[in-house]
Amino acid sequence: MKKIRKIIAVTGIRSEYDILYPVIKRLNDSENFELKVVISGAHLSNWHGNTAQLIIDDGFEIADKIDSLFVTNGVTQRSKAVSQLISGLTQTIDREQPDLLIVVGDREESIATTIVGNYMDVLVAHIGGGDPVWGNADDPIRMAASKLAHIHFTTAKPYSKNLISMGEDDWRICFTGTPGLDNIRNEPKIDFKDVCHFVKSELTDYIVVLKHPLSSEHNSAYEQMKITLESVKTLCEKNNMKAVCITPNSDPGSFEILKAYEEFESDRILLQNTLPRNIFINLLRNAKALVGNSSMGILEAPMYKLPVVNVGRRQQGRLNAGNVKFVDYNHQEIVDAIEKACFDNNYRNDIINLANPYGDGTSAKIVEDFLAKIDMLDSKWLIKSKLV
Amino acid sequence: MKKIRKIIAVTGIRSEYDILYPVIKRLNDSENFELKVVISGAHLSNWHGNTAQLIIDDGFEIADKIDSLFVTNGVTQRSKAVSQLISGLTQTIDREQPDLLIVVGDREESIATTIVGNYMDVLVAHIGGGDPVWGNADDPIRMAASKLAHIHFTTAKPYSKNLISMGEDDWRICFTGTPGLDNIRNEPKIDFKDVCHFVKSELTDYIVVLKHPLSSEHNSAYEQMKITLESVKTLCEKNNMKAVCITPNSDPGSFEILKAYEEFESDRILLQNTLPRNIFINLLRNAKALVGNSSMGILEAPMYKLPVVNVGRRQQGRLNAGNVKFVDYNHQEIVDAIEKACFDNNYRNDIINLANPYGDGTSAKIVEDFLAKIDMLDSKWLIKSKLV
Amino acid sequence: MKKIRKIIAVTGIRSEYDILYPVIKRLNDSENFELKVVISGAHLSNWHGNTAQLIIDDGFEIADKIDSLFVTNGVTQRSKAVSQLISGLTQTIDREQPDLLIVVGDREESIATTIVGNYMDVLVAHIGGGDPVWGNADDPIRMAASKLAHIHFTTAKPYSKNLISMGEDDWRICFTGTPGLDNIRNEPKIDFKDVCHFVKSELTDYIVVLKHPLSSEHNSAYEQMKITLESVKTLCEKNNMKAVCITPNSDPGSFEILKAYEEFESDRILLQNTLPRNIFINLLRNAKALVGNSSMGILEAPMYKLPVVNVGRRQQGRLNAGNVKFVDYNHQEIVDAIEKACFDNNYRNDIINLANPYGDGTSAKIVEDFLAKIDMLDSKWLIKSKLV
Amino acid sequence: MKKIRKIIAVTGIRSEYDILYPVIKRLNDSENFELKVVISGAHLSNWHGNTAQLIIDDGFEIADKIDSLFVTNGVTQRSKAVSQLISGLTQTIDREQPDLLIVVGDREESIATTIVGNYMDVLVAHIGGGDPVWGNADDPIRMAASKLAHIHFTTAKPYSKNLISMGEDDWRICFTGTPGLDNIRNEPKIDFKDVCHFVKSELTDYIVVLKHPLSSEHNSAYEQMKITLESVKTLCEKNNMKAVCITPNSDPGSFEILKAYEEFESDRILLQNTLPRNIFINLLRNAKALVGNSSMGILEAPMYKLPVVNVGRRQQGRLNAGNVKFVDYNHQEIVDAIEKACFDNNYRNDIINLANPYGDGTSAKIVEDFLAKIDMLDSKWLIKSKLV
Repeated sequence: MKKIRKIIAVTGIRSEYDILYPVIKRLNDSENFELKVVISGAHLSNWHGNTAQLIIDDGFEIADKIDSLFVTNGVTQRSKAVSQLISGLTQTIDREQPDLLIVVGDREESIATTIVGNYMDVLVAHIGGGDPVWGNADDPIRMAASKLAHIHFTTAKPYSKNLISMGEDDWRICFTGTPGLDNIRNEPKIDFKDVCHFVKSELTDYIVVLKHPLSSEHNSAYEQMKITLESVKTLCEKNNMKAVCITPNSDPGSFEILKAYEEFESDRILLQNTLPRNIFINLLRNAKALVGNSSMGILEAPMYKLPVVNVGRRQQGRLNAGNVKFVDYNHQEIVDAIEKACFDNNYRNDIINLANPYGDGTSAKIVEDFLAKIDMLDSKWLIKSKLV
Repeated sequence: MKKIRKIIAVTGIRSEYDILYPVIKRLNDSENFELKVVISGAHLSNWHGNTAQLIIDDGFEIADKIDSLFVTNGVTQRSKAVSQLISGLTQTIDREQPDLLIVVGDREESIATTIVGNYMDVLVAHIGGGDPVWGNADDPIRMAASKLAHIHFTTAKPYSKNLISMGEDDWRICFTGTPGLDNIRNEPKIDFKDVCHFVKSELTDYIVVLKHPLSSEHNSAYEQMKITLESVKTLCEKNNMKAVCITPNSDPGSFEILKAYEEFESDRILLQNTLPRNIFINLLRNAKALVGNSSMGILEAPMYKLPVVNVGRRQQGRLNAGNVKFVDYNHQEIVDAIEKACFDNNYRNDIINLANPYGDGTSAKIVEDFLAKIDMLDSKWLIKSKLV
Repeated sequence: MKKIRKIIAVTGIRSEYDILYPVIKRLNDSENFELKVVISGAHLSNWHGNTAQLIIDDGFEIADKIDSLFVTNGVTQRSKAVSQLISGLTQTIDREQPDLLIVVGDREESIATTIVGNYMDVLVAHIGGGDPVWGNADDPIRMAASKLAHIHFTTAKPYSKNLISMGEDDWRICFTGTPGLDNIRNEPKIDFKDVCHFVKSELTDYIVVLKHPLSSEHNSAYEQMKITLESVKTLCEKNNMKAVCITPNSDPGSFEILKAYEEFESDRILLQNTLPRNIFINLLRNAKALVGNSSMGILEAPMYKLPVVNVGRRQQGRLNAGNVKFVDYNHQEIVDAIEKACFDNNYRNDIINLANPYGDGTSAKIVEDFLAKIDMLDSKWLIKSKLV
Repeated sequence: MKKIRKIIAVTGIRSEYDILYPVIKRLNDSENFELKVVISGAHLSNWHGNTAQLIIDDGFEIADKIDSLFVTNGVTQRSKAVSQLISGLTQTIDREQPDLLIVVGDREESIATTIVGNYMDVLVAHIGGGDPVWGNADDPIRMAASKLAHIHFTTAKPYSKNLISMGEDDWRICFTGTPGLDNIRNEPKIDFKDVCHFVKSELTDYIVVLKHPLSSEHNSAYEQMKITLESVKTLCEKNNMKAVCITPNSDPGSFEILKAYEEFESDRILLQNTLPRNIFINLLRNAKALVGNSSMGILEAPMYKLPVVNVGRRQQGRLNAGNVKFVDYNHQEIVDAIEKACFDNNYRNDIINLANPYGDGTSAKIVEDFLAKIDMLDSKWLIKSKLV
């Protein structure tokens, strides 16, 4: 009889959970694996939409809830979050004795989970390593997590190569593409009226705005957001369009971004808390363009064939399918770039035909197949004998 | 008027402090820098010699003391230590607002300090990166710390190259050699009678034994130590020698090593707690060989021209000046290797003439010169725009 | 030469700091004492007005800032806050080695500070013990803090008696009255136009609303607030009055209270974040009545000769100077009670002539005199040999 | 169908677990209750006998293990332990959602558990409140825990009265006697040869020594222990007796006590780690006297009809069945008192006939009956409306 492997996934925020979801859904449905989820950070906050309930409603067994998000706009917030996560997660792992931990990306939960796995002799699979984006405190964290993780699921082939050049064994690395694309692929089309009803506005031509603070520039977060929103306002008024804006993550600077949003909120510039996945995906399917600096623009927009205007330095250096135009915090530059994205048909046609380096929406299956075929008890997985 | 830069050094255990000491002593004496020390971990434990007092007696200003060592031989000990360090250190850094953090090696304090620096936008200088040793939970931690640190002081030239191949900018890397060698260089010779008096035994021909648990093999710690000590006993009785054994560090398995020591303790096999630096250095200067698996055998023994018998897998893969012979947990193999180390004059002559890849005992000066000439406020140091 | 005693005050939220302020201001100005402040909790949150800056601007030396407020509306928030406070404060006290800790009331900081003092052998003076209010998780905390504290400054004479009946030595107890009254006594009258300017509204006849969640009823917080605000709306529209509402504290339920406020906010029902002390005091000096469930209604309103309508069970059982009418969550009952408070001249006259059991605004001087005359090093203060 | 109530017991050290054991054994065996145990503190330490295994072997389901004991002889140890316990326990309670927490005594786990119960709206039953012992940091903690607990099981009738005078409702209080006596009552007599075999010594006439550090005097721990052991040595040599000494708890000062023991250890003065319950009880059943300052002398010795010599101030003020003689740290006084305890037949006869105020060894049944008959969901249990 084959032993069922026990996997614990760790998640801290909605944006990262959306990437994790298709993978753990599939592992949970598989008879080879038992899966539990540790919920932390912004998930546990009413101020961020209480997305813990979403995870419970998705049908996962919850191993523990770990509060890790402090109310402070000081620079102490994120290292203290790592501290809370490590402490709480150690308690969880000591009780649950899993065979594998799985975690996504470059946030506090990625470094906390890989540290706990390293010291407690539990394998860690990390999704999203090797991505050379820089400018944020998150970026070196992603790299450090890769040096600690035992299995790497990469979202683009060049990222696999980056991991090898950083000293990781090639047999630990598996290209899966971005799991977020699985969501888009799997999500049924809904009547667009339901989208309009949800956001309480009649939408025809509209853009979506998704903007997060950049840690190295969080003191300018308010000014940067103001310039962005003034440009969005000019664009929308000139072309009789609307903008659906989504509230930012919980990093330092988010408070200032919200402040700016509240000043610009109107019948034309709509502010929305985190949206349910089906609303969000169908909203993007019908949008003219995406504006802001979310990783979605880089990673997921190609699957929507959606033009993106990335404002500021966040996401710089990441692999670009050709659908992303980078602009500075300059009013005219932003307006021009959005107009081109919305109305330049040649440019829009090019985007429709672009190849997507981030996979085809079958990541979850690739992960499951990889994990099903390896022998997790073979000590070669745990002991990293090649480190540079 | 030139601004004095404020530096905070973080230390957690005697062995690592010995490496840090010559560097921070020099920085503390320099008029360019203000230096404070954060004391944590085993330093704060009477059971490990209360070496916090040693640091205070060395004349450093103490920024904070952070308890981080739990009494548990469970596998929870080390990740929880990281949690405590991050939390406490964040509080310290928030108050002290230093320009630079400095930390050594691959233990909990290295990853905790680099995480705090990364999230709080404070530069971190890391001593000892790029060393490809593997087999211990410490080793991936060293690599992760390198990916987070902003300045790298390396202990051997090949290690600098390793950091570059891992994606670190070359201008962040400075070869200093092992600072522990500065201690040996600086330590005056004392009358050997004082050494004998301190260890309360008349020493003539003797070896020194320094053995720590290996995290991936901590369940075998007792058995491994027993084999080692039986071999040492055989060797000493046959050749009328003594063995001065030093108590291990506080990692999981240390309890079992101590248990084995207590069974073998005798007039011939002496057990010593951590020794004062002057006693320790002069003890090694006169020893026939070093046995065990301490990093000292690799890094510092070449400066003493001391043959080393490294028992087991710890220290494997590290650059070997030619003075270290690796043996397995096999009674005859260990006895033979120690005899060769002590009595094979050809072998001993080769060791006396070996080149030392770990520097010449001037690391502290090189660190000071490097830090004095850079502009710490230039954002190029803080933002790592090259990550792979 | 007389030794200067070192005192550390611990504060976690604006409402409690307002009580602490006159006392630590006076101690800080005294040549007998050196005073530092530990700032924690809601003070460090932009979402709660970043009142840490206020404390710094008040001229106090900051010993440490300790993040203790988690973003979670779960029931985990407050016990985890105590955990963070104890850990951080232990680090602070270990470094600062104070002679005395001082803390107010019944919140997390009171139990954390008394626990730390108890285990670290540092005297703790507690302001506000013996108050028999019940219904909130805070209330048993106040009592537990009293059992741990070494010196008790009470806000009313019956509360001193309560402490004695609980087993506290009478010589540890000193009636000071409520220090918050010192603020009112000390605060200069300002031109009422400045108050109007600050709240951005022309005020003539108005009430002030101050409502916090009750921990044992936090699930009803939204419904309760809605009933309260509907009553306030009815009252204001009928009598052409305005209501100045102040945002609640950070306890579970506060999110729901804010949600209700946002629905009722209008030109007549004004919503204000925490106000500067001079604005707040002068706002109350000119108000017709105070509505809600703040401890201010019980403790400070008598000094303003201000009628209070206390809605719900919070503050029940506390000593009432005669100015407070308790009502249930019933629309008509609330409206009637506020009308009586605002317009029944007999009732208002009675209130003007009431005796105030909470002192006369000279608490700070009484505290200073008490602390100046005792010998803190006498072990009788530290060892509580009478416990029941 | 009657709902099964879920109970979580919290334990931190062997001495306190011995009191808890008969109660939770009975609750665990009852069909009315589901019981889990949280293990923390010294239980998780190999240095203290790894008694966690004992609890697991006793057949209890473990809810979580929480590391809370730091290796530090600083005064930071115990408040930091409370911090760890509160944080870890909050995570546990949030997951387990028990109906009741149960905890014994005056140590870190008592205050941590009552704080968590208070803030998380979970009932706490506290065993051992109202005991007026003083002199230790533990004592005010016991009182504070009583002010926070919802149900009180007292070990002596006068202690019930003390709780009432402290303001606790009489219907929350139930006299059970000391549960430790249940162990003695339940423990079968074994062949004394097995006891001798276990301690590896032929015992005929012997005393037992059990001595813990007193927090307010921990700096004198070594000196006090030396005087005690010199007296024990004199006594034993003079009367050809042996002394079986048990290692102390983990409080500050324990390291120094151990140091003293190691100096005096001999064929006559035997040093033992924590003993299995059956060995320990049968050892005491045959001992001539108990020496030291353990609470056992006060609470359990009466059931053995065992004379006790209590050295120093620890245990002062506790109800004395008449079998305890208090002496100071004075050589002759200690020797004389032990001789009287061992050889004065009138005194020994009096002790055999003493009434035992600490119950008759049926505590567990009384606890079970009490908990089975109350309605835990009635809010009167949770909300303490009488606080003074």
